[in-house]
Amino acid sequence: MRRKLDVLCWFLAPIVMVGFVATGCAPQGDVQPPLEVVVDPLQSWNDGEAKQAIFDFVVRVTDAASPDFVAEPERIAVFDNDGTLWSEQPMYFQVVFTVDRVKALASEHPEWATQQPFQAVLEDDTQALVAAGEHGLLELGMATHAGMTTEEFETVVKDWLATATHPTTGRPYTEMVYQPMLELLDYLRANGFKTFIVSGGGIEFMRPWTEAVYGIPPEQVVGSSIKTVFEVRDGVPVLVRLPELNFIDDKEGKPVGINSHIGRRPIAAFGNSDGDFQMLEWTTAGDGARFGVYVHHTDAEREWAYDRESHIGRLDRGLDEADARGWIVVNMREDWRTIFPWADSE
Amino acid sequence: MRRKLDVLCWFLAPIVMVGFVATGCAPQGDVQPPLEVVVDPLQSWNDGEAKQAIFDFVVRVTDAASPDFVAEPERIAVFDNDGTLWSEQPMYFQVVFTVDRVKALASEHPEWATQQPFQAVLEDDTQALVAAGEHGLLELGMATHAGMTTEEFETVVKDWLATATHPTTGRPYTEMVYQPMLELLDYLRANGFKTFIVSGGGIEFMRPWTEAVYGIPPEQVVGSSIKTVFEVRDGVPVLVRLPELNFIDDKEGKPVGINSHIGRRPIAAFGNSDGDFQMLEWTTAGDGARFGVYVHHTDAEREWAYDRESHIGRLDRGLDEADARGWIVVNMREDWRTIFPWADSE
Repeated sequence: MRRKLDVLCWFLAPIVMVGFVATGCAPQGDVQPPLEVVVDPLQSWNDGEAKQAIFDFVVRVTDAASPDFVAEPERIAVFDNDGTLWSEQPMYFQVVFTVDRVKALASEHPEWATQQPFQAVLEDDTQALVAAGEHGLLELGMATHAGMTTEEFETVVKDWLATATHPTTGRPYTEMVYQPMLELLDYLRANGFKTFIVSGGGIEFMRPWTEAVYGIPPEQVVGSSIKTVFEVRDGVPVLVRLPELNFIDDKEGKPVGINSHIGRRPIAAFGNSDGDFQMLEWTTAGDGARFGVYVHHTDAEREWAYDRESHIGRLDRGLDEADARGWIVVNMREDWRTIFPWADSE
Repeated sequence: MRRKLDVLCWFLAPIVMVGFVATGCAPQGDVQPPLEVVVDPLQSWNDGEAKQAIFDFVVRVTDAASPDFVAEPERIAVFDNDGTLWSEQPMYFQVVFTVDRVKALASEHPEWATQQPFQAVLEDDTQALVAAGEHGLLELGMATHAGMTTEEFETVVKDWLATATHPTTGRPYTEMVYQPMLELLDYLRANGFKTFIVSGGGIEFMRPWTEAVYGIPPEQVVGSSIKTVFEVRDGVPVLVRLPELNFIDDKEGKPVGINSHIGRRPIAAFGNSDGDFQMLEWTTAGDGARFGVYVHHTDAEREWAYDRESHIGRLDRGLDEADARGWIVVNMREDWRTIFPWADSE
């Protein structure tokens, strides 16, 4: 217990700053705080191996006396989005957005009635939609998101998020985020980390809201994209979205996207599916202290339970290899006291 | 003069913080500082319209009472590199690097002896090299920079910078940076700006040194690139550079690169050539206070003088339209007291 309190003092020190006396965490000496006075930065995490591993890693890389100390600019942490920071069931939320866009634009495209994957959308054929795979979804995205300026698209995304609600919880999609991960983002940033999203989702679908919801600004969002082109229309410069794929930020694409946008290897990576495998692999293969984490969806009551057999967020190879690679597997049912920010008040 | 001192107090306030008494800048009341006590954040800039315009803009967007106040996350400033932050004469420095690489690798490529643009390099035919244009240079870059991992390339760049020297000054290339621009970068950052490089140069040529030289971390560097691919070699994940163009971050490409990497429109843009025109156009077309600046190379004695007729860093349309667009043109000979950090000690 004594060691644990010391550790608590270490990780709290950077964030309580002027609060040593209040918390009882003296920088030296024997005074120990009563445990109930210590503010836990990960309150929605149950005590356990996963939570302890997070604390241990942060202490290792932020303690100037640690052999694994990492200078602040190198404290890069990357997070998958779908299934890692917010839910992805019963369907990736961007797919729901895309479906809504297809339906809204269908009257202008009679040919979609007999053309896949559009037909699947218009007939609410979820299985056919899932079968179309990521490329099919991107094709839908290109057809429905292109031909407008970047600013027009941002407005479309914001308008949708302001009104659309999740089919089972009835909550706005931006409330389908994981409270434990919000606390983790804050905790890492309070300890000098720079937090990035690295998602297979569309970069311009995420950027309009990630700063408000996660505290992650647009320049720290990496994602899949279509091409844009610069034009001057009636004297006004605009960026026009083209129906042409630019980059798929998934699987082997994630380390490429990280290199392109961040330009240095992260020291911590958080994902939930085999689509994140290479991101964790790339991150944890670097020198010094590294941290790879999988969020494992195990809670059918409070969220969803799925892994090896799922079409969405399949986690198979990751489960097989996590232990041998030293990656942490978070068991949502056991490790998370709360899942959604609003769940306690339900 | 009284107004000028007030302005000085305003722009100094955010950066002196605890130093009100020392500088004499009282947040209220009539005490005025003796001018010589005030620390000028732009010491290498001569008093004049350009310097005043910088101060005025920063006050406009950082004073919470200003109608043009800009929240800190939106204070994005973008800088071209070649000719704006460091010199680009008698040849873009990356071209010198590329030439050195071609010569170093020539024995492995006998076919280069009769193949342009390689032949031009091996025969020191500068005119033919310039005539090959940006695409020719990128071709050289792809041929000499590809086929290795990103980490191997970073080592090659660092090794070259550690030994190569500028042909006329004899200085390392990383000392061919403009002292007034270093001060400007610091001044903007001290006022809550996030500073980015947006350059036609290779993104992976710049990232190994921009943090140490400019205080700009790799994730805030945007540039031209070749494609990379993720591979696992003998169990070790690597990113391999392919001889295939990914993106040219020049002219119409600059707003595209800004949108891709930053995801929001900057409020200030600094360039020196027509290759920066669209970046300034995109930046200054936004709502609210905007700031577009051209550095005009007018000092043949201390640096170089060139504009409309130059093959390198041509500034023609920009000079024609700057006034009408409200962009500032910095006259290096008149506006900069010092050009290079080491020049005062020469």
